[in-house]
Amino acid sequence: MPDEADGVTMEELQLATRNHGMPVEALNYPLTPAGLHYLLIHFDIPAVDSQTWRLDVGGRVARPRSLTITDLRARPQMTAAVTMECAGNGRALFHPRPLSQPWLHEAVGTAEWTGTPLAALLEEAGVDDDAVEVVFTGLDRGLDGGIEQQYERALSVADAFRPEVLLAYQMNGQPLLPQHGAPLRLVTPGWYGMTNVKWLAAITVLDEPFAGYQQQQVYRLRRDSEDPGVPVSRMRPRALMVPPGIPDFYTRRRLVPEGRHTLTGRAWSGWGDIASVGVSVDDGRNWEHARVEPRDLGPWAWQAWTFEWEPSGPGEYLLSCQAQDAAGNSQAGEPESPGWNVGGYANPAPQRVPVTVVVAG
Amino acid sequence: MPDEADGVTMEELQLATRNHGMPVEALNYPLTPAGLHYLLIHFDIPAVDSQTWRLDVGGRVARPRSLTITDLRARPQMTAAVTMECAGNGRALFHPRPLSQPWLHEAVGTAEWTGTPLAALLEEAGVDDDAVEVVFTGLDRGLDGGIEQQYERALSVADAFRPEVLLAYQMNGQPLLPQHGAPLRLVTPGWYGMTNVKWLAAITVLDEPFAGYQQQQVYRLRRDSEDPGVPVSRMRPRALMVPPGIPDFYTRRRLVPEGRHTLTGRAWSGWGDIASVGVSVDDGRNWEHARVEPRDLGPWAWQAWTFEWEPSGPGEYLLSCQAQDAAGNSQAGEPESPGWNVGGYANPAPQRVPVTVVVAG
Repeated sequence: MPDEADGVTMEELQLATRNHGMPVEALNYPLTPAGLHYLLIHFDIPAVDSQTWRLDVGGRVARPRSLTITDLRARPQMTAAVTMECAGNGRALFHPRPLSQPWLHEAVGTAEWTGTPLAALLEEAGVDDDAVEVVFTGLDRGLDGGIEQQYERALSVADAFRPEVLLAYQMNGQPLLPQHGAPLRLVTPGWYGMTNVKWLAAITVLDEPFAGYQQQQVYRLRRDSEDPGVPVSRMRPRALMVPPGIPDFYTRRRLVPEGRHTLTGRAWSGWGDIASVGVSVDDGRNWEHARVEPRDLGPWAWQAWTFEWEPSGPGEYLLSCQAQDAAGNSQAGEPESPGWNVGGYANPAPQRVPVTVVVAG
Repeated sequence: MPDEADGVTMEELQLATRNHGMPVEALNYPLTPAGLHYLLIHFDIPAVDSQTWRLDVGGRVARPRSLTITDLRARPQMTAAVTMECAGNGRALFHPRPLSQPWLHEAVGTAEWTGTPLAALLEEAGVDDDAVEVVFTGLDRGLDGGIEQQYERALSVADAFRPEVLLAYQMNGQPLLPQHGAPLRLVTPGWYGMTNVKWLAAITVLDEPFAGYQQQQVYRLRRDSEDPGVPVSRMRPRALMVPPGIPDFYTRRRLVPEGRHTLTGRAWSGWGDIASVGVSVDDGRNWEHARVEPRDLGPWAWQAWTFEWEPSGPGEYLLSCQAQDAAGNSQAGEPESPGWNVGGYANPAPQRVPVTVVVAG
């Protein structure tokens, strides 16, 4: 992978050293352990006092409410395993490279989120008949595109009422960590990370489309600066593999002994089940089918896959993998593939793992 | 800080996206929460089964031993708050920039480590009179400098017997996370991170100096490739500040309203107490003393500092800070400062925080 796009800027490096990727070998864990889940913090991690914190539900509702974390914990509880991926995953592999957080492939993680369903809360507040969208406001504050703002994203009323959407206060059975949005965050299974607003402070029902910066200016697939583009929403299919063998520290090139290897990985899509995973050992010239395991973490988490590989002999190999979902979306470059876009979102480029196979000894 | 050293390579970016820095605003926490402590994984995070795992104590000892994690947990327990910093912290600010993990300032964290003292274990094993060094072998395996290896580092017998050195199985009261070395790691308070071997599998007493790659080839301050250099050991003094105000997403430049501000931060040294912290608001032309708080986390953790700042008016400021310890080591450039070195270790360059002060409103 190196040599393709040298010249990462110091601004990008500043973002890369403060945001966290999931080291790809952590695909070994069905649920990503605390501290290995990817993290994208737009501004700073805010210091929130959960004792004085309130969630305000308002706007076009009949019964505005202000809830404490104790109120929320007393409500009906649900838990779901959810694979979450940053919309910018793969950005640094686009040419030219859009300047923002320079992810390669590692902006993903799967956690078991526990919280209370959003739908029931909206139901109780009584959403007006003319409501169109629901805005989620975080406590993280900063500038983006020259505009001072709190981080805010909206869902359509229909999406906000989906039964899987939850207000989460636990992650993998532990209280939410500060960097994951404590005391409360939105979790919208199937969607890219930008929708899952952290440090949630307010839920506001609108009778018109939300015009906020993070909704209208960014997180859209735009061909050029004139193109209004279409919003980024659910995660496109992606497969990743656990790199086999052992790595070189600096280049990450893998050293693998001759013989039979079981390649393993995980694949996901926000649009439905994974229908197939293709594996190539010759830099994408030929593809074979991996064995995709049935879901064991519920409908919103990644699925494991395995592929038996016996290299024809010592030498250099370039392994890659790509996924297709049951809804017909494919990571392979079909015509409707989003391809390059101004913001660098949803790059379908397959992970490439350079491997040197050596005589076993 | 940007504009000084553009051109980070894709190999460096691969390391930056998988290793984790502590976002600097996490200086707000006396103990770094799980998942925000810095992480430098040389090879891959190994999958270790704690049920079959053993710690082997051998080499020049009278009574070699093999211990289970249950054996270790049954031994005398101690807990210490320890500030740990990567020896490569600041590397990407050197000119020219040594090619490795490209840290800026964020490779640090403070945790409360719980485990059992190493000295008593060595005592029971009976270290031979001719013993010189003690080697710690991790289960992480890979290539570095063209050499296939498990990660290994040594301490002198005298350093290994120091009472604060511990074999840790808990971090902040929780079982050690996989990425921090589960089920057991070495913690050597005061030293840079490379000494704190993770996924510890063996402790081997030698009657000669350890010649391993991580001891003899790297982690040395070398002026050039001919210079054998001197080993990196304890942490040099460093001060960091919580950037005031709010950030711009991409540039991280801060926006701060006019008026009085209390700047806060933390400072540490592996050589003793922090004697003073200097703060500059004009890019290092003038320095004033910060107020350094007494230790409240014991002898091995960072100390808080505060500085009252009232900008003279709206405009651009460049804030920085630097520390001096009671042993006479200074972050400011004195003649014996290590300065540039081949491996890019222990860069004393102060953190620089560009700030725009605006009319409050």
